Amino acid sequence: MRMVDIIAKKRDGHTLTKAEIDFFIHGYTNEQIPDYQASALSMAIYFQGMTTEERVHLTMAMVESGDQIDLTDIEGVKVDKHSTGGVGDTTTLILAPLVATLGVPVAKMSGRGLGHTGGTIDKLESIAGFEVELDARTFNQLVNKNKVAVVGQSGNLTPADKKLYALRDVTATVNSIPLIASSIMSKKIASGADAIVLDVKTGSGAFMTELDGAKELAQAMVGIGNGAGRKTIAVISDMSQPLGKAIGNALEVKEALDTLRGQGPEDLTELCLTLGSHMVVLANKADSIEQAREQLKEVITSGRGIEKFKEFVVAQGGDPTMIDQPEKLPQASYQIEVRAKEAGVITAIDADEIGHAASMLGAGRLTKDAEIDLAVGLILKKKIGESVAKEEPLVIMHSNSHEVEEVEKRILAAYHIGEQVKEVPPLIYDVISNE
Amino acid sequence: MRMVDIIAKKRDGHTLTKAEIDFFIHGYTNEQIPDYQASALSMAIYFQGMTTEERVHLTMAMVESGDQIDLTDIEGVKVDKHSTGGVGDTTTLILAPLVATLGVPVAKMSGRGLGHTGGTIDKLESIAGFEVELDARTFNQLVNKNKVAVVGQSGNLTPADKKLYALRDVTATVNSIPLIASSIMSKKIASGADAIVLDVKTGSGAFMTELDGAKELAQAMVGIGNGAGRKTIAVISDMSQPLGKAIGNALEVKEALDTLRGQGPEDLTELCLTLGSHMVVLANKADSIEQAREQLKEVITSGRGIEKFKEFVVAQGGDPTMIDQPEKLPQASYQIEVRAKEAGVITAIDADEIGHAASMLGAGRLTKDAEIDLAVGLILKKKIGESVAKEEPLVIMHSNSHEVEEVEKRILAAYHIGEQVKEVPPLIYDVISNE
Repeated sequence: MRMVDIIAKKRDGHTLTKAEIDFFIHGYTNEQIPDYQASALSMAIYFQGMTTEERVHLTMAMVESGDQIDLTDIEGVKVDKHSTGGVGDTTTLILAPLVATLGVPVAKMSGRGLGHTGGTIDKLESIAGFEVELDARTFNQLVNKNKVAVVGQSGNLTPADKKLYALRDVTATVNSIPLIASSIMSKKIASGADAIVLDVKTGSGAFMTELDGAKELAQAMVGIGNGAGRKTIAVISDMSQPLGKAIGNALEVKEALDTLRGQGPEDLTELCLTLGSHMVVLANKADSIEQAREQLKEVITSGRGIEKFKEFVVAQGGDPTMIDQPEKLPQASYQIEVRAKEAGVITAIDADEIGHAASMLGAGRLTKDAEIDLAVGLILKKKIGESVAKEEPLVIMHSNSHEVEEVEKRILAAYHIGEQVKEVPPLIYDVISNE
Repeated sequence: MRMVDIIAKKRDGHTLTKAEIDFFIHGYTNEQIPDYQASALSMAIYFQGMTTEERVHLTMAMVESGDQIDLTDIEGVKVDKHSTGGVGDTTTLILAPLVATLGVPVAKMSGRGLGHTGGTIDKLESIAGFEVELDARTFNQLVNKNKVAVVGQSGNLTPADKKLYALRDVTATVNSIPLIASSIMSKKIASGADAIVLDVKTGSGAFMTELDGAKELAQAMVGIGNGAGRKTIAVISDMSQPLGKAIGNALEVKEALDTLRGQGPEDLTELCLTLGSHMVVLANKADSIEQAREQLKEVITSGRGIEKFKEFVVAQGGDPTMIDQPEKLPQASYQIEVRAKEAGVITAIDADEIGHAASMLGAGRLTKDAEIDLAVGLILKKKIGESVAKEEPLVIMHSNSHEVEEVEKRILAAYHIGEQVKEVPPLIYDVISNE
C-alpha cells in the first residue's frame, strides 16, 4: 500500500477502505508517513468528504493510536457528555451530580483547556482542597460508590488526533466536518464512554456559527458514535449569547450551585434538564425523556442534587463549607459595573466578544502554561430581549485590577441595544439521534 | 503574510495575488515554508484551479527562483520548441537544422531525460565526438555563426519547480493543469526563449491521453506564455501510436537524417513541417504559415537541411562521415523480427507499451544514473490502418541480447489487429494560439 495512492483515491472522490485508513493513521502516528502527505490527504478530504463508514474507521483508528481508558470496572452504562464549546457553559458541574443522583455513573475525565475561561478541572479547583489527580483504581471505586468522580486528563489518548489536529491548524484544513467530528468522537471513545450526549452549539460564540453547519456536525458525530457502537444523541443549543449569567471560574461554580438549588438562570437550567434527561435515558435509568425530566426536576427541588455535589466534593478532598457558603470561593478585589450608554432593548450579545472580555480580566489562558485567575470574570445583568435604562448596569466585572477600560469597551461593543428585538433565539434548536 | 491564510484563500476559491504567490514560491525555495503547507496548497489548487493571471505569476516566480539563461547576445528571435513527450519523437533533431537554414536562431538547451529512450542530448551522442558541454560564450557564438547549437542543461534553473514537482509526485497533485503548465513554461522561459512552439501530445502514449485534457493543457500554456510576454502557440498532435517508425537513440538519429533527406516517415515529416512553419513565423522569417511551409520543403528538397545538420555536427566536434554513412552509427548485434500471429488490419498500437518494450531492450533509463544503450531499439514495419499477413513482420527489434521473449510479448500485446480500422487518427488535431 502506498500513501500517494490513498491520497489520489480520496482526491478522485472514492471511498477509502478500513485498511487504507488504518495504514494512514498508523503510519502517520509512527512517523512513517510524512506531514506533507497527511496534509494533502486532509485537503482532499476537505473537498471530497467522507462516508459515515470512513468516519467511523478514521475515528476508531485514532482511538487505537494511543491509550484507551478502561471503565469496565464501573457498573452501569457510562454516559459522557461533550460540548463543542462556548461562553459561560457550566453544564458539566450541574449535570454530573444531577444524573449521578439518579444512578447514572459519571466517570468524567476533563481537561484544563485553552479559551476564555478554564476547563471543568480549573473550575473545580476553585474549591479549596479539591483533588483532580486520582489513580484509575480510586477513580473507578469513587464512581461505583458515589456515581460521580472527575479526574484530570492523563495517559496518551489519541496521539494521532493530536498530531493531525496540529497539522490541520497550519494547513487550512481544520474546517472539515468529517475531520472535526472524528477528532471529537475519537477522544470521547478513547475516554471509555459507552454512550454519548453531545451539546453542539450554534451562534456567534460557537465554533459553528451557522445552524446548518451545527446540524451537519451533529449528524456527523451521531453517525460516528452509533456506527462505532456507542449510542449517541446530539442537542443543538444556542450560543448566540452567553449561557447563563456567569463567565469565570469561581463565578461559574457559584452559578452551578445556584442552579442545583433551583435558583439558577432559566436557560442554563433548561439546557441541563434537556441534556440530563437524554443522559438518564441512555443509561437506562428512565423509560422516556419526559419521565427523566421529571425525575431530574425532583432531584433539584428535593435538594438531593446539591447534596450529591457536596458528597462528590468531599470524596475528592474539597472543602464542603464552600458549597453552603459560596462567598468562601475565590473573590475578586473589585466589582465594577458596566452601564448602558443608552436606553432600549438588548437585541444581541456577541458571545465571543464577551468571552474575550472575561479572558482579558484573567479568567482564561491562551497558552498551556499560563496562569488562570479563578476569582475574576463577568456577571451579565441583561440578556437578549430585556429592556435597559440609560446608565443601568449591563454587566458586573469581577476584577483584580482597576484598569478595566479596555474590557469595558469590549463589553459595550458586544452589547447591541435597539428599539425592539426581532426574535429571542430559542435555547434548543434540534435533537439529533441518528443520521 | 501567513502561508495558512494563502492556503485558506485558495481553498475557498479566491484568486491569489502576485505578492501571495511570490511569498509562497520564495519561502518554499528558501525552506521557510514547509512541505506540508506546499502540498496542502497544491491540493487546493488541484480542486480550485488558477486564473491565467495566477498561472503567469506562479510561472514567473518559479523562473525567478533560480538562474536564467541570457541569450541576449544571440541575434534574432529565439524560438524554442517543447514537446510534452511521447514515443519515438525525433522532431528536435530535424527541426533544428531545418529552421536554422531559414535563419531562425536555435539555441537549444536539452536534457538527458528519463523515459523510454534518451533525450536529444543522448541521441546526439550517438555521433562520435559530438560535444554537448559548451560554455555560454562558445554556445552563443556558435548560434550566431551557424544559427544552431545544442547544449546540455547546466545551471540551477527553476529550483522551485524541481522542489515542488518532487513534492507533487508523492502527494497526488501532479495532475493539475495549472501546475503542469506553470512547471513546463517556467523551464522554457528560464532557458531564455523569446517565443515558444509547443507540441502537446494526446493519445495512449501521451501524458494527456484524452484530447480534451491536451487542449486544456495547451490553452493553459499558451495563456501563460502570452501573459508572460513570450509569443506562444501550441500544436496538438497525435500520440495514439508512436511517431515515425524508429524508437531508440541511434535509430532515431538515422530516421532524422532520412527525414532531412526527404525520405522520412510521412507523419514525422508532416509534424516537423507544421511545428517548423510556426517557428519560422514566430521568428519573423516568413509572413505566413503557408510561405514558411514552402520554404521548409525547399530546404529539404535542396539538400540545404542535411548540409546544415552536418555543419552543426562538425561545429560541435562530431564525425561528419556518420551523416553520409549512417551505418557508422552504433549498431545492435541482432535484428530480430516480431511477426504477426494473425492476418488483418492494424487497428491500434499502444504507444506507451511500445515505449516500454524499447526501454526493456536498454534504449531508455529509469534512474538518473542508469546507462543507455544507444544502439538498441525498435523499427515499426506497420502502423495503424496498414494490412498485415500472418507471420509478416510487425516490428524489427534491434537488440544486443538474444533474450527478447518478454519484449516480443509486449510488442505483440501492443499491436491490435482486427478486420478493419474505424478511423486512422489524424496527426494534427488543433493549433492553439491564444486562450
